[in-house]
Amino acid sequence: MNATQDCIVLLGDSLTEISWAPGGLAQRLAENYVRKLHVINLGLSGYNSEWAIPVFEQLLSKKEEQQYPYLRHAVSLSAVQSNLRRLVNMVKSPESPYYSPSTRVVLITPPPVNTHQWAEFQQSQDPPREQDRDNDKARQYADAVKEVGAMDGIPVVDVYTPLWEAAGQNERTLSKYLSDGLHLNADGYSFVYDGLLKVIADNYPEILPDKLNTVFEIWEPLGASDKPLEMLDKRSIFPSGK
Amino acid sequence: MNATQDCIVLLGDSLTEISWAPGGLAQRLAENYVRKLHVINLGLSGYNSEWAIPVFEQLLSKKEEQQYPYLRHAVSLSAVQSNLRRLVNMVKSPESPYYSPSTRVVLITPPPVNTHQWAEFQQSQDPPREQDRDNDKARQYADAVKEVGAMDGIPVVDVYTPLWEAAGQNERTLSKYLSDGLHLNADGYSFVYDGLLKVIADNYPEILPDKLNTVFEIWEPLGASDKPLEMLDKRSIFPSGK
Repeated sequence: MNATQDCIVLLGDSLTEISWAPGGLAQRLAENYVRKLHVINLGLSGYNSEWAIPVFEQLLSKKEEQQYPYLRHAVSLSAVQSNLRRLVNMVKSPESPYYSPSTRVVLITPPPVNTHQWAEFQQSQDPPREQDRDNDKARQYADAVKEVGAMDGIPVVDVYTPLWEAAGQNERTLSKYLSDGLHLNADGYSFVYDGLLKVIADNYPEILPDKLNTVFEIWEPLGASDKPLEMLDKRSIFPSGK
Repeated sequence: MNATQDCIVLLGDSLTEISWAPGGLAQRLAENYVRKLHVINLGLSGYNSEWAIPVFEQLLSKKEEQQYPYLRHAVSLSAVQSNLRRLVNMVKSPESPYYSPSTRVVLITPPPVNTHQWAEFQQSQDPPREQDRDNDKARQYADAVKEVGAMDGIPVVDVYTPLWEAAGQNERTLSKYLSDGLHLNADGYSFVYDGLLKVIADNYPEILPDKLNTVFEIWEPLGASDKPLEMLDKRSIFPSGK
């Protein structure tokens, strides 16, 4: 199939993968960008930032035969930062073979964790599983993402802080926004979606949904025209035509 | 961006375009096919089947310079059938430049119309609009779609009949399934989604969501492996590897 529209590509873990659910980030973006930008959900449940790199390379270009160093499942904070910077610079660095100056990059922090709720959920599994999360760690990862944004000049949606504040800095209260202590429910995704639209408005206002044309003309002028079939060429989503 | 996944392409009118809403057809498909098939919503509100042809040609291939005959907004039943057959045969006919034998085609009929509900909705517009629909006409279009399916051997999801029966063959009762008398609500889309999955099970069982691999390996075997980065090549969604 030909690419008739550019894409919003969501690269992430399970919080991204499950966000096609009603009220999820992908669902909200797809609904609001319909006929303007496709939404490609590349959420990969349980993946770490190192595994994301070869996947991203296959997404961005023909697969290149490369070897990668062995790594464990857990990725250190410094590794997360270097992996994130590597992912960002794949498209932002003029030296990169994947350089794409028209690609707008936004980083999104992880949300806080309700370890009590997560412990219950893990216990309810068959077989029961250990509570394996730490909210301080989640905050450190959120800070690491914000540091990468500051270092590389990439706008960041801080999901951690407003959710943590909305919960009165109380882990148990986070259950209002989390389905299992770790993953967001629709109310939790509201913070992600609203934060993302705010970052777009502040940094990339030209791609706000209402600023974009549909790729194909809307029907009213077609219905009013004597020659509708001559008005059906794919067009730029940017009113300026650029 | 590289195509890392094949696509489910939804070509239709406003009922398709708005189906990214929670419970809509596109949302349900995207949620159930995540990491297996992308969902491309090409719904074009208010478009007729003739306008769909040049759009579909741009979707399927580089735009070809062609001229099309002038036509009115209203498209006759026979024109709908010939346009539908033309669209289907673009991918199904070995003589077509767009021939794609691996593409699975499904036709979906329009739903019945609640003209009383639609009249109220049109009246509530500013300025008020006329009630311009006819449920018998909707049935005729549904029958026309079923005839094309029978003629060209394409499976059809009949949305009209089960919705009409569920409403006790009473237009007013259709408001349970229609948001405005013309467009489906989430309960209405259940008939479309369930009917589509039934058609897939009966005609293309190999692409049922549970029969497909994710394009990239799930995380558990990666986490258990000494060499996860060697397991991250894009793979076929078909377990047979074909």
